[in-house]
Amino acid sequence: MPESTDLRTTDTVSLDDNENSVVIIDQTLIPGEVRLLSIRDEDEMYDAIKRLVVRGAPAIGVFAAFGLYVLSRDMTDLSREAFIAELKKKADHLNSSRPTAVNLSWALKRMLKAAEDNENLSVQEIVEILRKEAIAIRDEDVEICRGIGEHGLSLLKPGYRILTHCNAGSLATVRYGTATAPIYLGHEKGYNFKVYCDETRPLLQGARLTAFELTQHGIDTTVLCDNMSASLMARGEVDAVLVGCDRVAANGDAANKIGTSLLALAAKHYGVPFYVCAPSSTLDPDTATGSDIEIEMRDPDEVTEMWYEKRMAPEGVKVYNPAFDVTDHSLITGIITETGVAYPPYAESLRR
Amino acid sequence: MPESTDLRTTDTVSLDDNENSVVIIDQTLIPGEVRLLSIRDEDEMYDAIKRLVVRGAPAIGVFAAFGLYVLSRDMTDLSREAFIAELKKKADHLNSSRPTAVNLSWALKRMLKAAEDNENLSVQEIVEILRKEAIAIRDEDVEICRGIGEHGLSLLKPGYRILTHCNAGSLATVRYGTATAPIYLGHEKGYNFKVYCDETRPLLQGARLTAFELTQHGIDTTVLCDNMSASLMARGEVDAVLVGCDRVAANGDAANKIGTSLLALAAKHYGVPFYVCAPSSTLDPDTATGSDIEIEMRDPDEVTEMWYEKRMAPEGVKVYNPAFDVTDHSLITGIITETGVAYPPYAESLRR
Repeated sequence: MPESTDLRTTDTVSLDDNENSVVIIDQTLIPGEVRLLSIRDEDEMYDAIKRLVVRGAPAIGVFAAFGLYVLSRDMTDLSREAFIAELKKKADHLNSSRPTAVNLSWALKRMLKAAEDNENLSVQEIVEILRKEAIAIRDEDVEICRGIGEHGLSLLKPGYRILTHCNAGSLATVRYGTATAPIYLGHEKGYNFKVYCDETRPLLQGARLTAFELTQHGIDTTVLCDNMSASLMARGEVDAVLVGCDRVAANGDAANKIGTSLLALAAKHYGVPFYVCAPSSTLDPDTATGSDIEIEMRDPDEVTEMWYEKRMAPEGVKVYNPAFDVTDHSLITGIITETGVAYPPYAESLRR
Repeated sequence: MPESTDLRTTDTVSLDDNENSVVIIDQTLIPGEVRLLSIRDEDEMYDAIKRLVVRGAPAIGVFAAFGLYVLSRDMTDLSREAFIAELKKKADHLNSSRPTAVNLSWALKRMLKAAEDNENLSVQEIVEILRKEAIAIRDEDVEICRGIGEHGLSLLKPGYRILTHCNAGSLATVRYGTATAPIYLGHEKGYNFKVYCDETRPLLQGARLTAFELTQHGIDTTVLCDNMSASLMARGEVDAVLVGCDRVAANGDAANKIGTSLLALAAKHYGVPFYVCAPSSTLDPDTATGSDIEIEMRDPDEVTEMWYEKRMAPEGVKVYNPAFDVTDHSLITGIITETGVAYPPYAESLRR
């Protein structure tokens, strides 16, 4: 494991040199510390996704793919049938860690399919195929983010003041990020963006993660609480909103971190363009509309206790703590994917 | 100072038995502890308002009136002219502690006027007049909240699910609260309300104060993060929004805790009635529109450090931390005052 961890040169998810474990940046410790974790055990993998040690839909997908490959290396004494059956069991288990992000199940399904398509080969050969598939998923993630960056940047002008929510940054992918990819590409070209980060309660991914990675790159960054975006837009201080996305329904409804839909309402009201940055792996043609997307409800303690020295809501009070919400397609100016920008009507543009 | 402090029977602001100090509930300690503080020193008074030990526009007004009276009792050895001059100086100082709430300057101006109208009397007699004026301001606050409760309740039905923001509760006034007054009155009549409290970052007045006082009264209470209201409304789980108010412009634009305008946008989008509860002392005919209201900008540390065991945004990041925002009158269904409910067009209805 490398000793120095410069966020600008460290992939969020990688394999160790011996390919015995998946190496991730522990995102629960940022901004206090950038610590790498080596994970090789199935329960640790499940826990890392569940506890958001690794988070962000694309990063979770790559992590799950690498994870399944690492686990498969310990199963080479099984028969082919037992190997495939065990692989499915492990994939199902990992897949149950978080329900909303489509990338997790997408990556695991893709790994399983690679194994099943080659079930006539030896177990050792299937393991090698799983290795290649996981690396392909990683490489594609990097390419996809770069593509989103290029298409997104075509919509932005130098000096733009950009508001983002949660972390759809490099920490949510292998590199570049989705919503941050246009920002990083523009920054390299001297675009002098000013970026506003919603802190994103309850887990503060915006304040802790996005603000951290942007400042590490030397970008002008301002944190605000989630209830301040309308105030900022009313003052005319936002030129565009860029957010990530966990799942896009066939009609363009987009599930993303809780609060995204509220931000979209404010953007609509104040005439600020609102762009969803969505790798094509998050496009889900099997889901007709946003109301068909299952929304994960999380632990009340995240709202009432976590991060605080003392409890900050009374004992026994109820808590509403959904992880995501759905932004109606009517509020979305454009959906930026690695192959281009889709505009309304999304039912047609997304199909293309 | 009483030993037991049952929130249901303790005024938020009062005079001690000897009238040597103003007694307040220290709101920075709730929900962990209900502790009373006796304050008799001018700098402590300034600090109590500035640090939100006492907060809520009406409570601040009563606190400032009681405070000026308590301070005046130490000035009886001055000449009449020196007494009035010193009183003005102290009022100006207290008034500078928070710029947005109109009640603070309103209460202080009213105290000064009472003194000036009687400047031919002896200092001792003027002090007695200040005492009566401060007690009148307190008594009127109680009556006003009760009036808002009655008019507000006429808009609500049993079983309503009500969303509120920040603390416009009994802790923001002497008793009853403004936005909570209809809730408490309905609760006494068995209306079985379900109340949702926005936690209200950065200082968490909703999670810490409103949720605390409502649960103390046995009301069904749920806390949510400020970015979750649109999600809740999209699920059809909110029947009405009730918020307090710090200042209402002549056209009905209402300044209230940061995040109120974002909530109003969501309510408008989802067809949920949005009511502003405003004592007539917050109606400010001298302010034409919301854009004329000065918005207090607060310390960045409130967002990045306060309440947290560890820093939760990177060192050196900028912070946008306004205390209030302005809700456009077009987003407000009705403004509930102690004398009735004003409906659009507000320029006319508020004048009446």
